[in-house]
Amino acid sequence: MTDPLVAATATDQIRTPAAPVGAAARHRPLDLRSVRLHPAGPLGAMQERNAAATIAHCIEHLGPALDHFRRVLGESDAENPGFVADTDVYKTIEAAAWEIARTGTTAWDAWLDETIGLIARVQEPSGYLVTWVQADPAKERFADLEGAHEMYALGHLIQAAVALDRAAGRGDLLAIARAFADLVDREFGPGRKDGICGHPEIETALVELYRHTGERRYLDLAARMIDLRGRGLLKTGHLGAEYFQDHAPVREARSAVGHAVRQLYLNAGAADVYLETGERALLEAMHAQWDSVHERKMYLTGAFGARHQGEAFGDDYELPSDRAYAETCATIADVHFNWRMLLAGDRSAAGYAEAIERELHNALAAAVDATGTRFFYASPLHLRPDRLSEGHAPRERQSWYSCACCPPNLARLTAQLGSYVATVADGELALHLYADAEIDVPDSLGGGTLRVDTAYPADGRVRLRLTGSEGLDLALRVPSWSPTALLDGTATAPDDDGYLRLRLTAETTLSFDLAPRWTRAHHRADALRGSAAIERGPVVYCVEQVDLPADVALDDVLVDAGAPLDEHDGSPHLTFPAAVRPSAPGLYGPPRNPDAPRPVTVTAVPFAQWGNRGGDAMRVWLPAV
Amino acid sequence: MTDPLVAATATDQIRTPAAPVGAAARHRPLDLRSVRLHPAGPLGAMQERNAAATIAHCIEHLGPALDHFRRVLGESDAENPGFVADTDVYKTIEAAAWEIARTGTTAWDAWLDETIGLIARVQEPSGYLVTWVQADPAKERFADLEGAHEMYALGHLIQAAVALDRAAGRGDLLAIARAFADLVDREFGPGRKDGICGHPEIETALVELYRHTGERRYLDLAARMIDLRGRGLLKTGHLGAEYFQDHAPVREARSAVGHAVRQLYLNAGAADVYLETGERALLEAMHAQWDSVHERKMYLTGAFGARHQGEAFGDDYELPSDRAYAETCATIADVHFNWRMLLAGDRSAAGYAEAIERELHNALAAAVDATGTRFFYASPLHLRPDRLSEGHAPRERQSWYSCACCPPNLARLTAQLGSYVATVADGELALHLYADAEIDVPDSLGGGTLRVDTAYPADGRVRLRLTGSEGLDLALRVPSWSPTALLDGTATAPDDDGYLRLRLTAETTLSFDLAPRWTRAHHRADALRGSAAIERGPVVYCVEQVDLPADVALDDVLVDAGAPLDEHDGSPHLTFPAAVRPSAPGLYGPPRNPDAPRPVTVTAVPFAQWGNRGGDAMRVWLPAV
Repeated sequence: MTDPLVAATATDQIRTPAAPVGAAARHRPLDLRSVRLHPAGPLGAMQERNAAATIAHCIEHLGPALDHFRRVLGESDAENPGFVADTDVYKTIEAAAWEIARTGTTAWDAWLDETIGLIARVQEPSGYLVTWVQADPAKERFADLEGAHEMYALGHLIQAAVALDRAAGRGDLLAIARAFADLVDREFGPGRKDGICGHPEIETALVELYRHTGERRYLDLAARMIDLRGRGLLKTGHLGAEYFQDHAPVREARSAVGHAVRQLYLNAGAADVYLETGERALLEAMHAQWDSVHERKMYLTGAFGARHQGEAFGDDYELPSDRAYAETCATIADVHFNWRMLLAGDRSAAGYAEAIERELHNALAAAVDATGTRFFYASPLHLRPDRLSEGHAPRERQSWYSCACCPPNLARLTAQLGSYVATVADGELALHLYADAEIDVPDSLGGGTLRVDTAYPADGRVRLRLTGSEGLDLALRVPSWSPTALLDGTATAPDDDGYLRLRLTAETTLSFDLAPRWTRAHHRADALRGSAAIERGPVVYCVEQVDLPADVALDDVLVDAGAPLDEHDGSPHLTFPAAVRPSAPGLYGPPRNPDAPRPVTVTAVPFAQWGNRGGDAMRVWLPAV
Repeated sequence: MTDPLVAATATDQIRTPAAPVGAAARHRPLDLRSVRLHPAGPLGAMQERNAAATIAHCIEHLGPALDHFRRVLGESDAENPGFVADTDVYKTIEAAAWEIARTGTTAWDAWLDETIGLIARVQEPSGYLVTWVQADPAKERFADLEGAHEMYALGHLIQAAVALDRAAGRGDLLAIARAFADLVDREFGPGRKDGICGHPEIETALVELYRHTGERRYLDLAARMIDLRGRGLLKTGHLGAEYFQDHAPVREARSAVGHAVRQLYLNAGAADVYLETGERALLEAMHAQWDSVHERKMYLTGAFGARHQGEAFGDDYELPSDRAYAETCATIADVHFNWRMLLAGDRSAAGYAEAIERELHNALAAAVDATGTRFFYASPLHLRPDRLSEGHAPRERQSWYSCACCPPNLARLTAQLGSYVATVADGELALHLYADAEIDVPDSLGGGTLRVDTAYPADGRVRLRLTGSEGLDLALRVPSWSPTALLDGTATAPDDDGYLRLRLTAETTLSFDLAPRWTRAHHRADALRGSAAIERGPVVYCVEQVDLPADVALDDVLVDAGAPLDEHDGSPHLTFPAAVRPSAPGLYGPPRNPDAPRPVTVTAVPFAQWGNRGGDAMRVWLPAV
């Protein structure tokens, strides 16, 4: 049954990955095509590299996954490339779809024709479509909800399909996705079997499908998946219920626990359900989750997952730099979670936007190299010289992984970046991310074009020029690290919500304080005690062994967290004076006055750039006096 | 073929778990029955509790394991209790055997009759005896050397059998063990198939079997297992070669890596092979291993394994208190490793003895509760209030585990404790551990009895009295934390090797400095930076939430590592003044001057006693100025 109210809205849907239609969304996103990031800035450059290299690289590496689709048809005897390989295909399609929305490219049309044709042939008449199960006669459909990732696969299929329909008006994949969604609805919908997927993801996708089709039952199914979680439906075995977020009902689970990607996709889905239902209890649970994730369990780089074991969140304040699992997909999932909380508008957008900015400029920028073809799956904040490479946590970026969830996930997120720059709320255009860009102002705000001229975050000046309009009410985020902003040279404090408001008629220049700074962690963060990090604007720095004299071991450097941090024109590097501690025998002993340390000048580089000169030692947090 | 030289020695073998016959062993152990620990002291009390409660508790919990032996015979349809359950039986038998050696008890004779009878019936005519494989028609013998733990099971069978024969002159289990060992020798001995076990343990056991039987081929087989390791024979899969110590030949692997219990059993076995062959290259590799384990990878409590993932050693200096896996079995394996290195006598015995002492009084003493019936498998040095229980790392001691390797391992080690107190070397009796005890002096040193009268480590005075002899040359270990010792009231420095030498004719009193002290960790130990711990003699302390005022969170306590540590007569507790840090919002921020902390008096208790009043928060390392 189509909800007439929603369907009317749906036809006007903008090309963006989360397009709420419910009244609970105070902020409305902009069409991806109306925010054009210039390649001169770092976000625009990420998009260009993604379009020019990463998406093609993903397509090139999807061979085994696509062969596994063919195996279901008896056209290949390819080995199973893993239980989420189908979704690598879907995420790559989604990345291509957003690129089509952004640039109108036709470069991937033939590949899309072929791939979607193959997927269509593999889909069963029932709608079922998971090659991990279909290719193995021993496996039954929906018999292993914990491990088979069937609804997870459907979730990514839906997201790709909606993106492709929204972006290019291409509905063939959407028909496939809907047929599978309808099967899941018949099997697990209201009044049917109780069942949830071991890996959340379908929730946020079903809400999108509702938004896109106007079919209320997809929203109901998403809400049902949220409702059924935490009721012991999963056979959680040795992994434990927390791993699956099945230990407590979603509205009662206040702490982020277990597999970080699962928790954060679940949170994004719950936030999406709130955006459409306005259910306060769900929002309040998500506020608690947000606080748990960002106030007690987030790495400085905007990464998540303190434990390799279970790819999991640790305790509150358990944030070891060396053992950070910090999976790229977890940060991507948190961008989604933050964005949906921002759209809700129940709290100030500033915290959400600042988290997204931290994630984009650090964890996600570091997850890919300059060529766009090598990736981190796990992105620790400290690499010791003797650390061995481990499975998904190698010492250096890899071109692909046996479980390749991260590279195509990064590709789809990067293609969406324009969506996260600004929103419309309360008659204002709210600018959340600063990037060199051109924004078409919606007619509801007077139309015209807003030119954002900036080298941010290399430079703190942001010039805003409005053309084709008589005036625009702007809300401009002032980052928390820049206590005041200069507005045309005058120090101006933001409103309580962290946004500075003005009516722009022609041009104004905003300047933030980008002086590099020393950062400390909360006193309960044991792994970071006695250490300090360096930040400049939203950019986190690190020190690499390769920049130190040959006779200085990085782990012997002792910094003064009050030392001047020198900038060098035209370089993102910083230098500062520090000390080298003499080597000391013995692991434990009485407190002692060590020999005098000797001086050394240390160079720090943006975390995003580390590891591009080999996989030697690196630290974000530096032992400090 | 029996080596006549060895066989002659073997008949005189003393009742002790490692009885070298080779010339490379400079130190010779004493017979377990000739070192009588008094139950008034902590080591003697551990033995009494072990005899009175733990061994019976283990026997009580072996039902499923023994039923699985019956399943092989078709007399039970018990589920498989796990791939090492056979060894739980063997380790319990071994514990009973050393108790028989120690006290002559007959309490377990009937149980031994029944159990050994059952084992004998399960053994195949070939000698094969692993119920994990035998009970499952789908499993082939020696087809899964990585995972089936067949030689590991044989290793524990041999150790139990040798102990029973040495201790009680009971040879029935020895015949079973030899038949299985002979099968392995026929399959994998020199000139046969190349194969090693995924879990080292057989190496040290085979050397013991050689010592006990005089059959050289068991030593050759042990040496072959050492030689073949690190040559890529194992299919190591996603666990990686390091997990199995199969990444490098044993003589080249200088760092302790991978599964900690495996590495340490392997090291014990390699040291045992050295003791019999005198091969210098092997000893030098073990020196490097020892340094890696104890100078860079040991927890203050004498525990090992910094990572849950793979139950593994971390990098050098990677020693997180919260995520310490610190498996009880790893510490037990390290006692074995240390003891064999001590017997070698190539370096001073002091370092090895001090490591054993640290392990016994801390990690191992904490691994069991006061009743002797509840155990830690993993024993972290920091428990946060919000930490969830995980599989083998619950918040509180458990009566048994699904993989129950630790409780019976602790039982067998505890029953052996007398063996680790003293040795004979160079015409001296060397005293390595201080405990209230009576020692029969070997005739080679003049005979008689040495009475060691002490409340150590509660009190630092050790009164030594010799009776029945005219004189005894003694080497007395001076612990590194007591820079000098008082000998009958006179400060006396030890020799360079850490031992104080004297000829005892009647009586003397030695006193160590037991003042409680603050301890710091090496500057590279990131997880311990900015923290201090408390030790008193060999005893590590901790602070428990239960001893703090209700409004003070343990993780907010800030100590001054120069604060006086007050002792209280008759109590093992210490108190000291500290500060409580005000709660602070925000995870990261600029350095700031916090609000003034408020004072609090903190009580510290021996780590061994923690968790006996519930599973609330605990810390060994305290944030410190």
